Amino acid sequence: MKATDLYRYRLTIEYDGTPYVGWQIQKNGLAIQQVLRDALKNFCGHDILPHGAGRTDAGVHALAQEAHIDLPREFPPYKIANALNQHLKPAPVAIVGVEAVGPSFDARFSALRRHYEYRIVNRRAPLTLLKRRAWLVHAGLDADAMHRAGQLLLGKHDFTAFRSIHCQAKSPVKTLDSLDVRREGEIIIITTSARSFMHNQVRSIVGSLKMVGEGKWPVARIEQVLQKRDRALCGPVAPAHGLYFAGVDYPDRAESHEKQ
Amino acid sequence: MKATDLYRYRLTIEYDGTPYVGWQIQKNGLAIQQVLRDALKNFCGHDILPHGAGRTDAGVHALAQEAHIDLPREFPPYKIANALNQHLKPAPVAIVGVEAVGPSFDARFSALRRHYEYRIVNRRAPLTLLKRRAWLVHAGLDADAMHRAGQLLLGKHDFTAFRSIHCQAKSPVKTLDSLDVRREGEIIIITTSARSFMHNQVRSIVGSLKMVGEGKWPVARIEQVLQKRDRALCGPVAPAHGLYFAGVDYPDRAESHEKQ
Repeated sequence: MKATDLYRYRLTIEYDGTPYVGWQIQKNGLAIQQVLRDALKNFCGHDILPHGAGRTDAGVHALAQEAHIDLPREFPPYKIANALNQHLKPAPVAIVGVEAVGPSFDARFSALRRHYEYRIVNRRAPLTLLKRRAWLVHAGLDADAMHRAGQLLLGKHDFTAFRSIHCQAKSPVKTLDSLDVRREGEIIIITTSARSFMHNQVRSIVGSLKMVGEGKWPVARIEQVLQKRDRALCGPVAPAHGLYFAGVDYPDRAESHEKQ
Repeated sequence: MKATDLYRYRLTIEYDGTPYVGWQIQKNGLAIQQVLRDALKNFCGHDILPHGAGRTDAGVHALAQEAHIDLPREFPPYKIANALNQHLKPAPVAIVGVEAVGPSFDARFSALRRHYEYRIVNRRAPLTLLKRRAWLVHAGLDADAMHRAGQLLLGKHDFTAFRSIHCQAKSPVKTLDSLDVRREGEIIIITTSARSFMHNQVRSIVGSLKMVGEGKWPVARIEQVLQKRDRALCGPVAPAHGLYFAGVDYPDRAESHEKQ
């Protein structure tokens, strides 16, 4: 097919990451990308790989992962959503939005800002309704102290201390736009935004903020860890099942093959 | 044992109702009451039956079911909570609060008011993270109309139209204290309070409010259904998995064997 024969769509995808090895297709188990690829094959008979805005690790959830796909013919967006959701059953993966976009749209490279959310349940009792949906922390956490510590990470920094040793990003320099910690009863919600994040960056930051919240680290230690750029100084990485990929900002686009 | 040898405690219990036949012990499957009874047996060696504030049906969840138990000796409340939670694993049932109470406290009969919450996800896409945690309704719902309809049920009425044919309550006359419907994005939350509810009353009301929300019934029809006292006029009963037993109010008590 010529490129002009393809119609590009942006998919907004929600998933429970529990049963998957992560977003990206891997040899060691089922990935969300593969589940979508299979649904696309059943929908239109072609092998179509969805290109995601960001990888999520095993167990990480998405409220709004974004991906683009190229289809061999045009469909009304609601038909794509309904058909894919039908073929996705019973996988805990759902298409919550579809939009026709121009050929220059790329879910990964067009992204202006990515949003993540991390959920902690701060109590003694085990989780029931939120099992595999949040990190259970027994020790009382000071959410205000965690928030203050988070503010020390805002702006452009070398985040070497807060990235996985497996991270493949060329540069450890990233700009963190926001990081807010708030308490809602026994739940602590951490929201953070940046153009891009490195592998394990959010979970590494959350693990260190938890040290502050427990009172084991003074607030200022977060800045020291950042400045020393030493991975060994980072707090324990927070578990995957508390993390949610919460959304992506893209530039407003006039270009859409629907509107042409 | 003499009654004076017994120490009474109030338990606040959270559970995922999915794997259970309901709160009350039955012959046809595992009940939450039995799961707690087993944990109590493992904790203190005696057969102790927890007495709940209200029965919940199969699949119904609890944010804060209340129960009382009588123990043969005194324990600090936190020790009861920690021990029971240890013995409850891996069941999705957790003790989130324990309080020493006097012998006149009865989880069921001392209750002044019970609170329920019902969660609807109002969208086209299937559920992923909230699967078995909410009712998925595809048709767009008008939450304001549902709220207005709910106000017609407040006060003391014969709720025959909104109770299960299996309901064992002596009188169908109940007083509904509050019923609020609010939308939070794609989620519609219905909260309601009364001294007591009849079997399936909340789910019957929610099923009828959904008819109003979809525009299939005018708001005023709720009042007509109520007044005609005919079960056949009620909307389809809403599914169990959207319902949460959210709490119980009790009188303030000075009496506690801890404080004596």
